Amino acid sequence: MAKKLMFEKPLGMRDTLPFFYNKKENVRTRLTNAIESFGYQFMDTPLLEYHETVGKVSATLDQQLFKLLDQQGHTLVLRPDMTAPIARVAASQLKEDAFPLRLAYDGSVFRAQQSEAGKPAQFEQVGTELIGDHSSYGDAEVIALLIESLKQTGLEEFVITVGHIGFVRSLFEEVLPQNNEAVETLLEYLYRKNYVGYKSYVASLSISEEAKNSLTALLRLRGSDAVFEEARALAKCQAGLKAMNELKQLHRTLEQYGVASYVQFDLNLISHMDYYTGILFEGYAPNVGALLCNGGRYDALLPSFELNASATGFAVHVERLVEALNGSTEIRKSAVCVIVDDQTFSEGVDKANLLRSENKRVVIQHADQVANLTAFLKKYEEVIDMTGKGATGDE
Amino acid sequence: MAKKLMFEKPLGMRDTLPFFYNKKENVRTRLTNAIESFGYQFMDTPLLEYHETVGKVSATLDQQLFKLLDQQGHTLVLRPDMTAPIARVAASQLKEDAFPLRLAYDGSVFRAQQSEAGKPAQFEQVGTELIGDHSSYGDAEVIALLIESLKQTGLEEFVITVGHIGFVRSLFEEVLPQNNEAVETLLEYLYRKNYVGYKSYVASLSISEEAKNSLTALLRLRGSDAVFEEARALAKCQAGLKAMNELKQLHRTLEQYGVASYVQFDLNLISHMDYYTGILFEGYAPNVGALLCNGGRYDALLPSFELNASATGFAVHVERLVEALNGSTEIRKSAVCVIVDDQTFSEGVDKANLLRSENKRVVIQHADQVANLTAFLKKYEEVIDMTGKGATGDE
Repeated sequence: MAKKLMFEKPLGMRDTLPFFYNKKENVRTRLTNAIESFGYQFMDTPLLEYHETVGKVSATLDQQLFKLLDQQGHTLVLRPDMTAPIARVAASQLKEDAFPLRLAYDGSVFRAQQSEAGKPAQFEQVGTELIGDHSSYGDAEVIALLIESLKQTGLEEFVITVGHIGFVRSLFEEVLPQNNEAVETLLEYLYRKNYVGYKSYVASLSISEEAKNSLTALLRLRGSDAVFEEARALAKCQAGLKAMNELKQLHRTLEQYGVASYVQFDLNLISHMDYYTGILFEGYAPNVGALLCNGGRYDALLPSFELNASATGFAVHVERLVEALNGSTEIRKSAVCVIVDDQTFSEGVDKANLLRSENKRVVIQHADQVANLTAFLKKYEEVIDMTGKGATGDE
Repeated sequence: MAKKLMFEKPLGMRDTLPFFYNKKENVRTRLTNAIESFGYQFMDTPLLEYHETVGKVSATLDQQLFKLLDQQGHTLVLRPDMTAPIARVAASQLKEDAFPLRLAYDGSVFRAQQSEAGKPAQFEQVGTELIGDHSSYGDAEVIALLIESLKQTGLEEFVITVGHIGFVRSLFEEVLPQNNEAVETLLEYLYRKNYVGYKSYVASLSISEEAKNSLTALLRLRGSDAVFEEARALAKCQAGLKAMNELKQLHRTLEQYGVASYVQFDLNLISHMDYYTGILFEGYAPNVGALLCNGGRYDALLPSFELNASATGFAVHVERLVEALNGSTEIRKSAVCVIVDDQTFSEGVDKANLLRSENKRVVIQHADQVANLTAFLKKYEEVIDMTGKGATGDE
């Protein structure tokens, strides 16, 4: 028989103790203020959704979904992202609104974990959705807002890497016409960032040397906007040129926003196997190995809810951002402790009310209820002892 | 075959559109500020817990739990309340802290609904837990903080009704010694607020007229602290007198807090069949039929996590509080819209940055991306048209 559980939590589930909670709250407030300053409106959706509605269209692998059955026999999922639920709302309750819509969210999302590898099964995302703007201006707005939001949290060093799925696909389809299997295999290597595997697969293909060179040249298309020229030489078809024009326009607009210095281009970036339809991006900070934020254009999602509208957005992984900020947002939430007895309780209430009116945080504590007063009072920045017994114990 | 789902949500699940989201956010901020002003520290726990740890000990009926199986075969539940998870944390990660602990939370909790009767399956609770203080001062602090928090949201009319499970049980056990079945039946009638059923059940009991009179007299013990005298006459045993002394001490302390005018006593109040162990309370506002907030003392919960500590706390039902506040917290989140074209985009960015530095919310919108400019611009309080084409359409 399995051992009795008492204090354990499900795989990948974590408690947020006050110290980390305060750091998160600070980051969350700064992110939401920045997002609201761009005129985005926050909304929320339920934690549980039907698998058939948003579960299927989300950018999450099926085995990572938490599923349960309701009493009508429908499969429910804990929401794996916020984009699909917001698309559901945009395409139903908000569809009569004048587009573009600027929506934002701050919520928990879920990924079932298969092993205790330290990955969270629940994490918080703050993000935006710009729905109904299909221009590079829209893409640039989302990236500029992402950069502005990160800066507002106090994060100094970070880079947003931008790619374009349209460019990659058009190159592959040009070099490997009617070879869907090879295209998907190459995309998968890029998605897994397995460049060694990518190169040896390219070498194994029965195609011309020139074609192989084109495919491996893709791996070098990383860096500043200087890569655009080489990229343009590689992409000879219409779709590739269109993608390059979008990236150039995006870059120009990001310069106008004054945020281009935070952006790098990576034309072999694949953030997801088949979710994004245009530009896509990932953000990293030097001291955190994992992805800090990501996003892109996903023009196929709204049509899956029968709404003909394009969409672009970003999501920030809040816990990782707090980690990236390390000590830099450390905030000391201190409180005053007024320690009282039966005789001085009423006077203690008056004192506490006065201090609270000065925006102080004040605990009133009856001395009889504290087993170890010295240890207890260490939690507070200031102690006001009204017991007349030297209760603070440190004189 | 069932019809295809596209926009539907699971039973009792709701979207929170921007208008309601803003109202909630406003209420949430005021509640958390008030709670922090009393030196409580916010924390959070996961949405999913093991049924064996917090699911079983929570104050929720088993059929109201959302359950799922993890890959190890454990039953997980969506947390039905925050009190049991916080007890788990207090008894494990925080058990070496100097008690009393003052903890607070703001989170979603879940109740599976059996029918579409309008009841939410997910709702938000803001609440507190005072752990390790077994005095009436502790109970009074929690009630005073609840009242202060509600006042801070702008709620003017509300009443907190206070009872004591110890008083009711001691009366029943005195009048109906060794008749557990009758005691539980009477408690159940009170829990369901079925006073007609209670009276006819009392009438049917084979006990003396005097005993019957005692049981029906209980129903009259409602109102100001004036009921204490009649209650004291009814409760002749030690446990009953102890409960009455606690209530008197509580009332005196609430007067010292200056909040006694919001409190009524109701000595037949039963908020839950077997969760509370001392005082318990419920809060109502005149324009909302349902419970706004509740709480009490639950000294048996921490011991179920092997920690010998008492606890008392409250929880506010945030959505119902927003409803109770009706229009009174209405906040207009307005934004400026700067409408641009290719030529004026850069100038628009500068204008937007300037306005944002004055704490304005500013949307920059390229005119080409708006199908119906007149309708779109109606969403904004102010429009700055940089297209030079009279794009606002309302001149």
